[in-house]
Amino acid sequence: MASRIPTMKLLSLVLSSFVIVQIALASDPDVLSDFLVPANQNNVGGGFFTYTGMRVLVNQSTFPANFTILKASMEFPALNGQGVSYAVLQYPTSSLNPPHTHPRAAELLFLVDGSLEVGFVDTTNKLFTQSLQAGDMFIFPKGLVHYQYNADPNNPPIAISSFGSANAGTVSLPKTLFATSIDDTILAKSFETDVSTIQALKAGLAS
Amino acid sequence: MASRIPTMKLLSLVLSSFVIVQIALASDPDVLSDFLVPANQNNVGGGFFTYTGMRVLVNQSTFPANFTILKASMEFPALNGQGVSYAVLQYPTSSLNPPHTHPRAAELLFLVDGSLEVGFVDTTNKLFTQSLQAGDMFIFPKGLVHYQYNADPNNPPIAISSFGSANAGTVSLPKTLFATSIDDTILAKSFETDVSTIQALKAGLAS
Amino acid sequence: MASRIPTMKLLSLVLSSFVIVQIALASDPDVLSDFLVPANQNNVGGGFFTYTGMRVLVNQSTFPANFTILKASMEFPALNGQGVSYAVLQYPTSSLNPPHTHPRAAELLFLVDGSLEVGFVDTTNKLFTQSLQAGDMFIFPKGLVHYQYNADPNNPPIAISSFGSANAGTVSLPKTLFATSIDDTILAKSFETDVSTIQALKAGLAS
Amino acid sequence: MASRIPTMKLLSLVLSSFVIVQIALASDPDVLSDFLVPANQNNVGGGFFTYTGMRVLVNQSTFPANFTILKASMEFPALNGQGVSYAVLQYPTSSLNPPHTHPRAAELLFLVDGSLEVGFVDTTNKLFTQSLQAGDMFIFPKGLVHYQYNADPNNPPIAISSFGSANAGTVSLPKTLFATSIDDTILAKSFETDVSTIQALKAGLAS
Amino acid sequence: MASRIPTMKLLSLVLSSFVIVQIALASDPDVLSDFLVPANQNNVGGGFFTYTGMRVLVNQSTFPANFTILKASMEFPALNGQGVSYAVLQYPTSSLNPPHTHPRAAELLFLVDGSLEVGFVDTTNKLFTQSLQAGDMFIFPKGLVHYQYNADPNNPPIAISSFGSANAGTVSLPKTLFATSIDDTILAKSFETDVSTIQALKAGLAS
Amino acid sequence: MASRIPTMKLLSLVLSSFVIVQIALASDPDVLSDFLVPANQNNVGGGFFTYTGMRVLVNQSTFPANFTILKASMEFPALNGQGVSYAVLQYPTSSLNPPHTHPRAAELLFLVDGSLEVGFVDTTNKLFTQSLQAGDMFIFPKGLVHYQYNADPNNPPIAISSFGSANAGTVSLPKTLFATSIDDTILAKSFETDVSTIQALKAGLAS
Repeated sequence: MASRIPTMKLLSLVLSSFVIVQIALASDPDVLSDFLVPANQNNVGGGFFTYTGMRVLVNQSTFPANFTILKASMEFPALNGQGVSYAVLQYPTSSLNPPHTHPRAAELLFLVDGSLEVGFVDTTNKLFTQSLQAGDMFIFPKGLVHYQYNADPNNPPIAISSFGSANAGTVSLPKTLFATSIDDTILAKSFETDVSTIQALKAGLAS
Repeated sequence: MASRIPTMKLLSLVLSSFVIVQIALASDPDVLSDFLVPANQNNVGGGFFTYTGMRVLVNQSTFPANFTILKASMEFPALNGQGVSYAVLQYPTSSLNPPHTHPRAAELLFLVDGSLEVGFVDTTNKLFTQSLQAGDMFIFPKGLVHYQYNADPNNPPIAISSFGSANAGTVSLPKTLFATSIDDTILAKSFETDVSTIQALKAGLAS
Repeated sequence: MASRIPTMKLLSLVLSSFVIVQIALASDPDVLSDFLVPANQNNVGGGFFTYTGMRVLVNQSTFPANFTILKASMEFPALNGQGVSYAVLQYPTSSLNPPHTHPRAAELLFLVDGSLEVGFVDTTNKLFTQSLQAGDMFIFPKGLVHYQYNADPNNPPIAISSFGSANAGTVSLPKTLFATSIDDTILAKSFETDVSTIQALKAGLAS
Repeated sequence: MASRIPTMKLLSLVLSSFVIVQIALASDPDVLSDFLVPANQNNVGGGFFTYTGMRVLVNQSTFPANFTILKASMEFPALNGQGVSYAVLQYPTSSLNPPHTHPRAAELLFLVDGSLEVGFVDTTNKLFTQSLQAGDMFIFPKGLVHYQYNADPNNPPIAISSFGSANAGTVSLPKTLFATSIDDTILAKSFETDVSTIQALKAGLAS
Repeated sequence: MASRIPTMKLLSLVLSSFVIVQIALASDPDVLSDFLVPANQNNVGGGFFTYTGMRVLVNQSTFPANFTILKASMEFPALNGQGVSYAVLQYPTSSLNPPHTHPRAAELLFLVDGSLEVGFVDTTNKLFTQSLQAGDMFIFPKGLVHYQYNADPNNPPIAISSFGSANAGTVSLPKTLFATSIDDTILAKSFETDVSTIQALKAGLAS
Repeated sequence: MASRIPTMKLLSLVLSSFVIVQIALASDPDVLSDFLVPANQNNVGGGFFTYTGMRVLVNQSTFPANFTILKASMEFPALNGQGVSYAVLQYPTSSLNPPHTHPRAAELLFLVDGSLEVGFVDTTNKLFTQSLQAGDMFIFPKGLVHYQYNADPNNPPIAISSFGSANAGTVSLPKTLFATSIDDTILAKSFETDVSTIQALKAGLAS
């Protein structure tokens, strides 16, 4: 069952110049070709469409000690133009995925093992929470702040999350707010606290 | 941790008329609100964003006897407007997901257990195949014919597939072609065979 | 060759209710008509395309005492389907627009008077800042955390911001994080601090 | 300068039920269902997907005396959500399709008979012209001003034009500018001429 | 009526580097310029927007002996970014366009001569058929399997099809399924038949 | 408050070749990265996101003698992919912005000073007009012909217009129609006048 190289007319047109793909990497439109191949790879087979970076999960002998995310996003160039990507999340006891947003897609979380506390806040500042059990799915709408927390001391949860973009992006709020040198005064006023509280938060998150 | 009802200004505007949602169910655009709530449900909490239809997978005591697909697509109304959905696929020994296409999205398959033979054909009629092992991902580009086959007699594979649309749709080719009463002569000419072969194929797929 | 009727599950859902146009209000696609008129208004003139809600700015005799935002978004129904909206921002001395994101559009700020400190953080946790003077524009890319701060004690700045969506939405991070009853323990772990610091922050932001 | 009510053909279709498909008729996104059926038609067969409004062309015994356009756009409701539509254009001797734009799509003209002079102007005010012969195609890019003219006294041309939207819309410039009661002074200044020239143009186009 | 070269600011920016267009060829979004010019062609006139590849139809003296498709898609580079393309189809007696899909657009067929049997199957496996006469149009919704068949022995039909994408793509199912070396066992199981039937079908389609 | 350089994985991929951005300049899709940086600028800070081209407005000592437009569109490369842009318009006594269209976006005009007569014509040839006062906003729907006129001899108006595209484009109709060498006969027939009137209009607009 040999895979062969696509000889799309499009590519011949393209390969005749010193060409590129920045945009190939920069936009998520409907593609005009079946798939997009990076400029330096003119000859692809089934392997190009395969991502093996998650095999470590299968081979792992012990559950990770800290909250861990493994992504299959732009690390997997064949996703370019296909509008979908994955992350696998593992939560040891009492760990969490702190409040964050994805600027470019909704997240559909599938809890494959354990139990998990999840929540998101909409733009009217309403909090929606749920206690998920194994087999449940939860949708975090596009661009909203959300988190997951493992409150179960016994059965560490594993979730698979899917995104409707090949590169959803992640804005982790504790780090974004308190580990990027935003001015202390601005943060103190924003959070209606004093500068020393801000500095303490910064110190905690810097470590 | 009580969830409360969103009181989006948008809704008050809307509820003043006897209108329609056809589009609410029919398009996959960027939403203009955080999420879309069906017309008859004006008061949603965390449960609205949760899908429990996959819990049967966790509770199942034996592997299914036939190839089985469980979907979380428009069965899960909160996906409307979020551009993402899921399917879980289970392949007992020698079973397969026959050649098919999804008219409205690419499919990103994540093989969580077992091994699996996969393939797709591009619009230049090139076949791309791959033997996946547990932990591998494979992208089936948008709109192309693809299949999965379990050639491994021992370890029945389970895959989770994600789609970059809330309703990707499925066109199963054997049924579409040979179980929908397309005229025998048209099929015979199309497949460059005789009517009796077509009728035999139809009989086989009708059962 | 009889044609049969499609019995799409979707439709049954739809036909069972006196339903809604939520989507008319909920999506930002290219329109198929010149403009969209709400269901209860079948007869529109030039006034429908005019928004007078900003006239208060012209008539205001004194600069507001607190940071103030006036929006022309879905308050102005003619924007529906046109993919653009506005906000006017006024910053009295030492006031700020605290860190926030817009889930559905980039923001192009135009500083029409005064000076302003602005910043945003990208998804790699890099901070970009700028001191704007009157006449400057600054683009806050889609979905990223950003803020504005008036450090100038004398000349209170006014900015006009435009968004590439009729309803960009706003997620104000201090309120979203600390005024929505997210569990104290989850917040304490997320911000790598203790519960009493979280409770102090919550108390400050509740007032 | 009285504003009047739009009497869009679309609306008559819509107002016949207590429905609204405003959006169904108003957006051109990827559909979430295979196709969209108007709210009052819950049972469709092959006829729903067929448009017979062009049969008059086959049966016509003489070439029309004036420039004529036949459209298959929203008159054909099955196009809703499919992003494509048609027009057939017939040009008797010395007739033309005066300068116009389509607000919502490019136009791909296929000259099936005769010869035709075509032109468009880009946003840098460059004119592009071409003398087409039977069998030629010409693309008028999205939103640009264009025209077609039959300079051939013998062989009246027929063209089929396709649009990448189910409802491209047409802005005919002579009528839009001089038959809609825009103030004479404004027009005189705009065209750097005097009011009497404007009034003469208006009189000519009013007939 | 000389055509002149567009001197868009955009291009000067672009031409100052060793630039490219893979994406120009790979995506179908709204363009940010009036049109897209390939990197090696910096000086275009009316001819660039003209496609003459269909003139052969006008000059052809006899109807083709076999079903024939002539396309104006990416062969015509000016279509890039304009979201529309064409195909002309000619069906001699008893010929057909076998079941196929277009991954990236709906097809709007216009039967300009003769009569034609058409059909498509939706994702619920319902068949929709129609007998078209000259002048009729038929819409094949996005991504669904469809075919056309000429059952009329006398008057060979000609159709013009338009697509809402500059590169709709075609997946011809007989060839895709039985002429691409998909494993015989997989096909036999998929079509619920035996390997010898599959091999016979492959042999028929290989010739 | 030092700004640092983004080190997005995407960029490293890109920078390893002699790459480009035509598309970066040519399409307005959702971006797959936070922002798009031109190929020759691999190291950007806050200044890249700042546009100073409007400072002249702040420093201007006298109102311009003629109608003046200042744009922040593709002159400001950071707008690429962000789907928004600006123009500032100044109207001295009795001046106007003559009838024009924007091929790629709606325009949301904000009148910040003075009064202004505005109007647009929809595709059914209905004129919508409005007399705006300072503080009013008016939406000109996508692709429709519109104009603005200052009828107030005393208080010269200033407006800020926003567009839902990084490059909306402008088709100024007097120049497009009468200053681009479209054939006199075609124009005379189009406007149902004589060639000498057309030549007079052309002469007036050529000056």
